[in-house]
Amino acid sequence: MFLSPLVTELVEALRVLPGVGPKSAQRMALHLLERQRAGGLKLADVLTRAMEQVRECRECQSLTEQDVCHLCTSTSRDRSILCVVETPVDVLAVESAGSFRGLYFVLKGHLSPLDGIGPRELGIPKLLERVRQGEVRELILATNPTVEGEATAHYIREALRDTGIVVSRIAHGVPMGGELEFVDGNTLAHALAGRKALG
Amino acid sequence: MFLSPLVTELVEALRVLPGVGPKSAQRMALHLLERQRAGGLKLADVLTRAMEQVRECRECQSLTEQDVCHLCTSTSRDRSILCVVETPVDVLAVESAGSFRGLYFVLKGHLSPLDGIGPRELGIPKLLERVRQGEVRELILATNPTVEGEATAHYIREALRDTGIVVSRIAHGVPMGGELEFVDGNTLAHALAGRKALG
Repeated sequence: MFLSPLVTELVEALRVLPGVGPKSAQRMALHLLERQRAGGLKLADVLTRAMEQVRECRECQSLTEQDVCHLCTSTSRDRSILCVVETPVDVLAVESAGSFRGLYFVLKGHLSPLDGIGPRELGIPKLLERVRQGEVRELILATNPTVEGEATAHYIREALRDTGIVVSRIAHGVPMGGELEFVDGNTLAHALAGRKALG
Repeated sequence: MFLSPLVTELVEALRVLPGVGPKSAQRMALHLLERQRAGGLKLADVLTRAMEQVRECRECQSLTEQDVCHLCTSTSRDRSILCVVETPVDVLAVESAGSFRGLYFVLKGHLSPLDGIGPRELGIPKLLERVRQGEVRELILATNPTVEGEATAHYIREALRDTGIVVSRIAHGVPMGGELEFVDGNTLAHALAGRKALG
């Protein structure tokens, strides 16, 4: 590196951002130093506050700087439907679909016994307790359609078998707007198995 | 946005980085919050120090947190050759070539009269004064091969015409490792005009 020690340190520190390699970190550092000092200072300030204050929502385990997040405290959501996802990003994905009016429960990932990640690490006991309190009528399992996501969904489904509550799984099939030719065989198999009779 | 106010603020603040759109800012914010709190705090700290302490080198106008940068204070560089570039990134580019052992002078961009950027804004009077002090024997103009870069090089060349110092311009031509077929006509014209007789 031919940059000054502090600029070099900044380039290194920027690499903590996902998808930022040495070249883009360099470009970012020089851009901030040459044209965006105020923006850089603002970013540093927000970053400090976010890293220190953002924590888990006590109800849904999503990210929030409050005790309970704004979705869980919202009065316009249907509290009887709970959508279970793996991460806070998945909440965004479902929200952007715009059709879900219930609440969420964010697992901290998926079951992964080999990594020592069991039900407790994901917060599943908390989820089960919440369901048993009676407010929830339906639980939608929206974990990822991966081996681990399926296993996690299966585990929760089994744990709630005695409660009589409706447990559903999001549909797997051909994505909208795509072309059949480019859909993988596994997805097509699910799409065929889950076919619906037309009215 | 369906994120908490502070997380939303973080996503917005990250967009000050070049090449970071809404989606990647979101991904960066959640990545830091979920997996890199320590790295995020470290970045905030370095960012604050860099934005506050990094300034222009008194000698070459490059970026440094010292009064004079490490290249200008280096005892292993040839102080009689000065390479003039447009930005600090260009210093990196020339240094990475590994063959230049002189010093640099970093203009703050290029001449752009319509934007009110004249010789004074670029620090050209400082460059001329330095050259007139007599230590510099050769000035290599390595401004960009653009209309503005050429005009800036031309201006400096003319301003030094009476000094008797060697003023050179980096060669323009076909890039190494490329294929002729993909080189633009303007570059090829330069390459032909600048042809050299072989041994």
